[in-house]
Amino acid sequence: MKIVVAPNAFKDSLTAAAAAEAITTGIRRVTPDAVCVHVPIADGGDGLFDVVKSVFGGETVTKTVTGPVFRPVDAEFLFLPEEKTAVVEMARASGLALLKQEERSARATTTLGTGELVRAALEKGATKILVGIGGSATNDGGIGFAAALGVKFLDADGAEVAPVGENLGAIARIDISGRRFDPSKIRVEAVCDVDNPLTGPRGASAVFGPQKGATPEDVAFLDAGLANLAERIRRDLGADIEHMPGAGAAGGLGAGLAAFAGAELRAGVDVVLDMVGIDEQLADADLAFTAEGRIDFQTAFGKGPAGVGARAKRHGVPCLALAGGVQGDVSNLHPVGIDACFSLCSGPMTLADAMRNGAALLANAAEQAYRAFLAGRRET
Amino acid sequence: MKIVVAPNAFKDSLTAAAAAEAITTGIRRVTPDAVCVHVPIADGGDGLFDVVKSVFGGETVTKTVTGPVFRPVDAEFLFLPEEKTAVVEMARASGLALLKQEERSARATTTLGTGELVRAALEKGATKILVGIGGSATNDGGIGFAAALGVKFLDADGAEVAPVGENLGAIARIDISGRRFDPSKIRVEAVCDVDNPLTGPRGASAVFGPQKGATPEDVAFLDAGLANLAERIRRDLGADIEHMPGAGAAGGLGAGLAAFAGAELRAGVDVVLDMVGIDEQLADADLAFTAEGRIDFQTAFGKGPAGVGARAKRHGVPCLALAGGVQGDVSNLHPVGIDACFSLCSGPMTLADAMRNGAALLANAAEQAYRAFLAGRRET
Repeated sequence: MKIVVAPNAFKDSLTAAAAAEAITTGIRRVTPDAVCVHVPIADGGDGLFDVVKSVFGGETVTKTVTGPVFRPVDAEFLFLPEEKTAVVEMARASGLALLKQEERSARATTTLGTGELVRAALEKGATKILVGIGGSATNDGGIGFAAALGVKFLDADGAEVAPVGENLGAIARIDISGRRFDPSKIRVEAVCDVDNPLTGPRGASAVFGPQKGATPEDVAFLDAGLANLAERIRRDLGADIEHMPGAGAAGGLGAGLAAFAGAELRAGVDVVLDMVGIDEQLADADLAFTAEGRIDFQTAFGKGPAGVGARAKRHGVPCLALAGGVQGDVSNLHPVGIDACFSLCSGPMTLADAMRNGAALLANAAEQAYRAFLAGRRET
Repeated sequence: MKIVVAPNAFKDSLTAAAAAEAITTGIRRVTPDAVCVHVPIADGGDGLFDVVKSVFGGETVTKTVTGPVFRPVDAEFLFLPEEKTAVVEMARASGLALLKQEERSARATTTLGTGELVRAALEKGATKILVGIGGSATNDGGIGFAAALGVKFLDADGAEVAPVGENLGAIARIDISGRRFDPSKIRVEAVCDVDNPLTGPRGASAVFGPQKGATPEDVAFLDAGLANLAERIRRDLGADIEHMPGAGAAGGLGAGLAAFAGAELRAGVDVVLDMVGIDEQLADADLAFTAEGRIDFQTAFGKGPAGVGARAKRHGVPCLALAGGVQGDVSNLHPVGIDACFSLCSGPMTLADAMRNGAALLANAAEQAYRAFLAGRRET
């Protein structure tokens, strides 16, 4: 009996590793020689940087880069020397949180700093770069990012424009001849948890512009600008990224990463599940367990347990989920690949008690869920 | 898919029938055409009379009989005309609760009234009589019961003795020639939840005597009396009931029922499970569900869910148990036949909330447990 044990952390109660230990304790009460492979996971909900660091460790590198309103900021990225992998969070270089309220501007901000961080990662020797996109201050379609890597955005007169949202509509030609980046040698993954297209009513400007200070007029102007960028990318680079899911993430940085760095846009949980090699473990597994502090209707949308369920399903492996609380209707989890989910609460109790006894309760819940599974395996 | 749904009532929250409905609701969300056979059960914890009445209905018959201290009492028994079955609770005719504190006496009390109730049941046409034994005021070894049915207990002079504990040691001979009762035609089942023998340190006098007012001297005297009765039964009736489990129940009425009425001593839950015909239903079932308001270490000892589990196991049918609360270590339930047990609490909550939403929570818990079971049935 091989069981993949792949829990998320239980916030404020159990680390993912401790949760995996507890689940295995429960399983081994029934099957002492069960092979339980621990694959602690994360879904990027707390930030890709922290998630990868918590699972893989790595080196934190600080770099002074151009901030969203061109004021320098010190931004960190994570480097894993062995994997030659870097983790860059756009929010650390080009994030809304870096600005005062009155500095917010969807027109005047740039992702230049994110590009500079990527450049620094390349200089460290990274061949794989995960770019966490979210929490952006920008609406520049990723032209700042691209400019930092040597891409030139030229107006009708052939003059280079400043890489901010304001100038998107003025771009007449894109010159990638000086790009200091070879997409065939460097793998970039854009990690985001939204699937918005670049333009239109669900696009970057309409949906995320207002929180960056955009008025309705700004939104219309910027949406037209991004449409122009998409058109120039189509013509000059031969890529159609306008309606790609996730293109509109982070003020269109999703589109820019895809167009200028050949990035694949992926959900955070999938990136982490690949990094931990869950598919290899599931290939010959009999059962998978996943878990999280809370499981609810939202869990199906990119959270860790749903990711584990989906992978398990792909391998035809049953998957059981455990949670501190299972809230409301979770019927959308079953089609995703989670066969059943159980609370670790063994009766009426307070949240404080559930958290204090988290490990013991989780072991018991895992044991009982496993027993029900085994009951089904028995011939009747 | 045939599923036997056999829950106990959830005290103060759900009747056994309502619990069965809720469980089936959960199952049918997954398998709409599942054949769910409802077998609401009970374990006699609330009194055999009420249990049988709640499941089968029947006619309540009131009879004035001789009380434990010979003062007349009005006592009821239950009659099921179709099944020709009567349910007699000894406590209603010969119970400790019928006495004032100062009337308690292990020496001077009698089970005569219980025998009179049984006689009344025979007159109604009963061919099967369930006698619930427990809560007794008596320590007469059932000689009162037997006397009411025509058995004579004679002293060394051949004189009939009054059927009370006091006189047990004086019995020299038992005359059953006048017995108005044919054990080959009437089936009696003594329903009790203790397994004490008639005599000795775990016997009726030593264990239950003191709560009936017996001093240490009384205990020794009565224990010797019961030993004498056992010896006379051995000699005059050819039956050895002294060390039979349950012989010591209800002041030795267990022994008396076995010796004088050919009664089988049975656990309450087994009697009920037979009455509801659970074995027939389990014979071709794929799965069984049971449930109770609370499941704990004690559940394995004669409670409803354990009874269902044991029957299911006998038929090789997996059995899942659901409870409002699963308290403490319940690992002793698995060998009994309960494959897994789950709380219906879906997260931290108060007892009041759990009870208020009992049916909905029970349906959800049944669904998830069933899903885990099905996950095991799937080929991997």
